[in-house]
Amino acid sequence: MTKKDETAISPTRAQNYPEWYQQVIRASDMAEISPVRGCMVIKPWGYALWENLSRALDDMFKATGVKNAYFPLFIPIDFLEKEARHVEGFAKECAVVTHHKLEKDENGKLVPAGKLNEPLIVRPTSETIIGDAFARWIRSYRDLPVLINQWANVVRWEMRTRIFLRTSEFLWQEGHTVHATKQEAIDRTFMMLNVYKKMAEQYLAIPVITGEKTEAEKFPGAEITTCIEAMMQDRRALQAGTSHFLGQNFAKASDIRFQSAEETEQYGWTTSWGVSTRLIGGLIMTHSDDNGVVFPPRISPTHVVLLPIIKREDHRETVMKYSTDLAEKLRSQNYHGSAVRVEIDERNIGGARNWEWIKKGVPVRVEIGPKDIEKQAVYVSRRDRDRKDSVSMDRQEFADGICDLLDEIQNSLYEKALDYQNQHTRDIDDKDEFDAFFTPENKERPEIHGGFARSHWCGKTECELAIKERLNVTIRCIPFDREKQDGKCIECGAPAKSGRVIFAKAY
Amino acid sequence: MTKKDETAISPTRAQNYPEWYQQVIRASDMAEISPVRGCMVIKPWGYALWENLSRALDDMFKATGVKNAYFPLFIPIDFLEKEARHVEGFAKECAVVTHHKLEKDENGKLVPAGKLNEPLIVRPTSETIIGDAFARWIRSYRDLPVLINQWANVVRWEMRTRIFLRTSEFLWQEGHTVHATKQEAIDRTFMMLNVYKKMAEQYLAIPVITGEKTEAEKFPGAEITTCIEAMMQDRRALQAGTSHFLGQNFAKASDIRFQSAEETEQYGWTTSWGVSTRLIGGLIMTHSDDNGVVFPPRISPTHVVLLPIIKREDHRETVMKYSTDLAEKLRSQNYHGSAVRVEIDERNIGGARNWEWIKKGVPVRVEIGPKDIEKQAVYVSRRDRDRKDSVSMDRQEFADGICDLLDEIQNSLYEKALDYQNQHTRDIDDKDEFDAFFTPENKERPEIHGGFARSHWCGKTECELAIKERLNVTIRCIPFDREKQDGKCIECGAPAKSGRVIFAKAY
Repeated sequence: MTKKDETAISPTRAQNYPEWYQQVIRASDMAEISPVRGCMVIKPWGYALWENLSRALDDMFKATGVKNAYFPLFIPIDFLEKEARHVEGFAKECAVVTHHKLEKDENGKLVPAGKLNEPLIVRPTSETIIGDAFARWIRSYRDLPVLINQWANVVRWEMRTRIFLRTSEFLWQEGHTVHATKQEAIDRTFMMLNVYKKMAEQYLAIPVITGEKTEAEKFPGAEITTCIEAMMQDRRALQAGTSHFLGQNFAKASDIRFQSAEETEQYGWTTSWGVSTRLIGGLIMTHSDDNGVVFPPRISPTHVVLLPIIKREDHRETVMKYSTDLAEKLRSQNYHGSAVRVEIDERNIGGARNWEWIKKGVPVRVEIGPKDIEKQAVYVSRRDRDRKDSVSMDRQEFADGICDLLDEIQNSLYEKALDYQNQHTRDIDDKDEFDAFFTPENKERPEIHGGFARSHWCGKTECELAIKERLNVTIRCIPFDREKQDGKCIECGAPAKSGRVIFAKAY
Repeated sequence: MTKKDETAISPTRAQNYPEWYQQVIRASDMAEISPVRGCMVIKPWGYALWENLSRALDDMFKATGVKNAYFPLFIPIDFLEKEARHVEGFAKECAVVTHHKLEKDENGKLVPAGKLNEPLIVRPTSETIIGDAFARWIRSYRDLPVLINQWANVVRWEMRTRIFLRTSEFLWQEGHTVHATKQEAIDRTFMMLNVYKKMAEQYLAIPVITGEKTEAEKFPGAEITTCIEAMMQDRRALQAGTSHFLGQNFAKASDIRFQSAEETEQYGWTTSWGVSTRLIGGLIMTHSDDNGVVFPPRISPTHVVLLPIIKREDHRETVMKYSTDLAEKLRSQNYHGSAVRVEIDERNIGGARNWEWIKKGVPVRVEIGPKDIEKQAVYVSRRDRDRKDSVSMDRQEFADGICDLLDEIQNSLYEKALDYQNQHTRDIDDKDEFDAFFTPENKERPEIHGGFARSHWCGKTECELAIKERLNVTIRCIPFDREKQDGKCIECGAPAKSGRVIFAKAY
């Protein structure tokens, strides 16, 4: 691991991408699989990222007038049944509570006891339980809009789990709003999608495509599902956030009515929108390299780690004084509204120390030894650059320029990810080319394929499903910024008039 | 409700305390009972309080080196069984997940399907699932201490629920630490108890007694349970937070071992500590009056509400300009590290507007009408004072002094609560007096009784249980600051040497 031509993570992305993903997470100490089926433990380094991300999102929500609240973890089955497509979508994968205590059986084994009259499910999402509350809260148009968000854990009993990306339990936020008019609800749907786009691009440095889901990929019960889609380094798409216009479907299901200004009784128009710990998986898959995770400065738990090099005990005091002075200088700088986050790691464990911080993805590492102090310098390494590019810099200059440096790293990560996405996105009009684009050359490495295809589609679900069946490729979204050009459906050849849509393999 | 001799809340505390409690919560719009048995909905006004409280606690935790993490919601039954007293304590009241999907039966009714091989319980607390992770994380003394906190929801299937105070699901934080030595773990137990004391007294303005629980009242599996106990306005005690020294019990149960510096294999010493949304119930019961809740400024979602009085449309612009200028002036002031929180309520709904903010407990209300503007004045009402004490003040003087005013309110709430506690705490050495102290004069008003009795106790569980049986009174704690005086057990008359303990009826 210390030789220059070796990487810290084995296997590399090129060798085995799915296994590389598990290994970068392990090496970063962000999270681990738990002994509970499909559930993860989010360790402090991963949770700190979630805290930064959720704090920033929460501020953005509140700036649009949204307030936080909290609703029950459990949902009665008959609530779920109120919206037919909704129950269809979630019944297959939910944790069901049937008893309220444990008792010893004749063999002394603890078994469920105290059977509930009506089983409860652990929330997979909260439209129905929140809708029930909204029906009580809302009487008149004066009570509208209602703009609520909940930070919570949810459970979906996934059969195949992958840490952060798809786990049985995950953390998320779910926004739920009610409006007096259809247009206002649609506007809110797009407003929140734009908050997600801002979070992805400006904080996580993940370029995203915004668009609308097809009928087949919509949220169960939604009229319109909008989404942000990102390209991972294996060229598959990750749905990183969704915002739904629910029409009056859930309002009718939950009986959310109000007296209008004209004194007529009307159903409300609702929206819901959410992002989850899945974003962390997307972050890892976008920026990390064969030496570990790479964190964009805006959400990194630590911006700068100082690594004092103390080879002789009589140097300790000088080196530590120099380091703590520098830490103080750095912390006094305001990086996008909060102090620069600095850690000093004075462990004397040789090269392993430097590698640990590389694997943890900290944007800037600074080595400080007696020779640096002589020159009033610091030895600076950027996580987004090769180790060979580390440079000696004047200490004061480094401290003064830290915010610019962090912004530069932030931007370079975004640009690199955008280049990657552009490079692996192709306009395809020929079916054979389309199939070849998505067919792995090596059957043992099914993850290696073309990327995003921008192709025409006639609008029929059959064509979409035929492609999914044949290639495991789906329409990720109908992008908002598409040109309205004419073309032929990539599957059936029929005229397609609404412009190119994004096809990809997806997480 | 507008007549001066009437109160906003009916019944009053004196008329029916338990019902008054429900009504102040309803009137404040903080929370409501949900349709899910024993679960509550925390509405925005209540959740904002929880956000302020948890943000302040989180900062205090982090200042002691604690980091946040997240562990699974579900706990396998065999984990719970690892610590005998622990499973005993929680098996009677836990939600059990037995199935992972729903299917339609022959009548088209959705029923649980996909039976789990091993049922899971929804965490009532996380010692066992976190202990399992700690056993993996800890290898050597160099890994210690481990200082972890989790913000989470937990479920205890309570038979009798009361909003905030005792609900089947509640929000809390649970800290879990591992140490190399017994002394270090004990020190941490007390350190966190002191954080809770600081939260209660300095933020919530609730005076608390710190002490140790008796054997009968300890956390299941703990060696020492320390607690903060507060007196509510019905003179009952509320256990507002606990910090446990767990010895090596959970370390042995979860196999948390480490290699010591001397290269011997040892079990770790663990602690756990938690406070919950119950604190909000304690806050309400400590300060609220017959006009609604009263919030201490340090954690109030809003510090000052401005109420522009616009009787004629041609006054609107002037009054609003004056109000927004004032709001800006107030917000520019820093109250304990954050901007003063100001709301302007310009609804024209008459006296109901003022009453709404009284019922919501906002510390300072400011009315602004054309006559106030003429005098460059504001009309200021303090929530902790009678409405008759409202005063006209110079606008600039008010704005400049807002932080002092808020501190004054904060302190006066604390002093008032402390007076109440002192007034209803009595040293009792006579058994008849003791029984009379705890016996309600009116059987229909069982809540009205003496308060806290400081009496001697021989240390035997039998005596404690006999008192509980007879009077529903328990030892709330053996206070740390007690004098070590000799006395006779209030129950059996045997010599008692360790000083007076606190007896009370408890929530």
